[in-house]
Amino acid sequence: MRDFSQDHHWLSINTATLRKQWPLDRIIEECARRGIRAISPWRDQVAAVGLERTARQLRDTGIELSGYCRGGFFPALDAAGRQAALLDNRRAVDEAKVLNAPCLVLVVGALPGALSGKPDYTDMCRARSEVRDGIAATLEYARQVKMPLAIEPLHPMQAAERACINTLEQALDLCDELDPATLGQDPLSAQQPVCHLGVALDIYHVWWDPKLQQQISRAGAKPTKNRLLAYHVCDWLTPTRDLLNDRGMMGDGVVELKKIRGWIEQAAYRGYSEVEIFSETNWWLRPGEEVLDTCIARHCSVV
Amino acid sequence: MRDFSQDHHWLSINTATLRKQWPLDRIIEECARRGIRAISPWRDQVAAVGLERTARQLRDTGIELSGYCRGGFFPALDAAGRQAALLDNRRAVDEAKVLNAPCLVLVVGALPGALSGKPDYTDMCRARSEVRDGIAATLEYARQVKMPLAIEPLHPMQAAERACINTLEQALDLCDELDPATLGQDPLSAQQPVCHLGVALDIYHVWWDPKLQQQISRAGAKPTKNRLLAYHVCDWLTPTRDLLNDRGMMGDGVVELKKIRGWIEQAAYRGYSEVEIFSETNWWLRPGEEVLDTCIARHCSVV
Repeated sequence: MRDFSQDHHWLSINTATLRKQWPLDRIIEECARRGIRAISPWRDQVAAVGLERTARQLRDTGIELSGYCRGGFFPALDAAGRQAALLDNRRAVDEAKVLNAPCLVLVVGALPGALSGKPDYTDMCRARSEVRDGIAATLEYARQVKMPLAIEPLHPMQAAERACINTLEQALDLCDELDPATLGQDPLSAQQPVCHLGVALDIYHVWWDPKLQQQISRAGAKPTKNRLLAYHVCDWLTPTRDLLNDRGMMGDGVVELKKIRGWIEQAAYRGYSEVEIFSETNWWLRPGEEVLDTCIARHCSVV
Repeated sequence: MRDFSQDHHWLSINTATLRKQWPLDRIIEECARRGIRAISPWRDQVAAVGLERTARQLRDTGIELSGYCRGGFFPALDAAGRQAALLDNRRAVDEAKVLNAPCLVLVVGALPGALSGKPDYTDMCRARSEVRDGIAATLEYARQVKMPLAIEPLHPMQAAERACINTLEQALDLCDELDPATLGQDPLSAQQPVCHLGVALDIYHVWWDPKLQQQISRAGAKPTKNRLLAYHVCDWLTPTRDLLNDRGMMGDGVVELKKIRGWIEQAAYRGYSEVEIFSETNWWLRPGEEVLDTCIARHCSVV
């Protein structure tokens, strides 16, 4: 297992962690100042500063991406809505290419309309089927431009509104179905064992899963064809007061961070550990400098 | 599939639904007045009125139990704590016998101390192992007195504080391990195909699960040895504003109630459908009469 205690070489900052404090250019500047080598920005943050300008700033500072947030939200009430989602995902893939991201993270969507309180339908099987079709279509384009897609299984408490893929097992089943290359069934994969479709594993969403260790091992079983494309950390607070925006700083909750990192390293993951904290009543209220410094300190001490 | 639209013959009321309005004796009285045939009371509500008095009132009104809430909370920091939990569970079994309950529902517990905000430890494997041992010990006694135990898988958002059994699959794996009789491996089971250990399926906790249909089918695969001991209904609201006490009335949320009931009936479940709603800001604030009448109406129209 890599030693994280001496430096923050493998720390990445998901920029949603600082979205209430700073625009993206300032976040990049502050990360560069602290020797943070990677970030994972959100599309709206990039759009606010400008895509080309962000790409340039990343080149200038030498900061790379650990992922790009996010594509997804495939289900819709009608064909026009689903088509619009596909076009938007294609744009997200293109942006990810411009920013040289290692993967586009997918929050796949769930019951359309539920996020605004009134679902257009409640058929979860249909939502899952539309997600499958949406990923398949997006994957076709993403393969061509060589941008891996990372399905992020979301916590079951977000199954209605944000993602109807809710366990690592379910995500990997879909990866195996849509991207069998990783299983060695694609003739192209002999030369190029790249994983086109994998997972972004956010411990906040999966820490509770009794099958987590088993499925992490499955995800990473083949070192050259690892499905583990990204790894996100934060912590689960007791009590948790909000279903979306009450995430804890690493060390402030109950997640066994080192144990789970042990499992992913065992599964040959060697990428960044990306801090992603949505925190309406705590971290979003604090000065950005304090948040970043705390991320660095906790990354060394408890991740 | 049974027709629920003409009457409320198969409706049961989990008495937590009215815990803020009335004491248990009044709840029983109001249920009897409306021709409701079954309830599922909580231990603290029974204790407040008195066990013998409650048993007498049930006999007098002809109301039966669809379950007794609840045993469980097995993990503890030390052996003394675990022993105290076992004794308490034995008392719960005895009370369930006095009330002639068809099963004792188990909310198995999770990280000890987490419910009060400060977990004594965070090792989920340890918690799950202590749960396993606690159920095994309780089952030994429950078998003797013939009181089936029903493990209730709780939503993953309650994995830290209330139950580290979080999917139906995980619950059934444990049932198969601790009560192989149902699988025909117990010589005693030839004469007496009773399920000593099964599950209480609360749709609020499991509706999101992509393996739900498959695991329901597994649970009820053998009609005479059905592991489905209880079935709870309510609804999942969008948005959900609290992790514990923001459950919706059937029909007000996104759960596919009729579809899931179809699955359990396909799996040979023929018991009550029990309404259990914890609702701090809505149903607990309304007059009990209105809540009961709404439960009856919705049971006919959407369950």
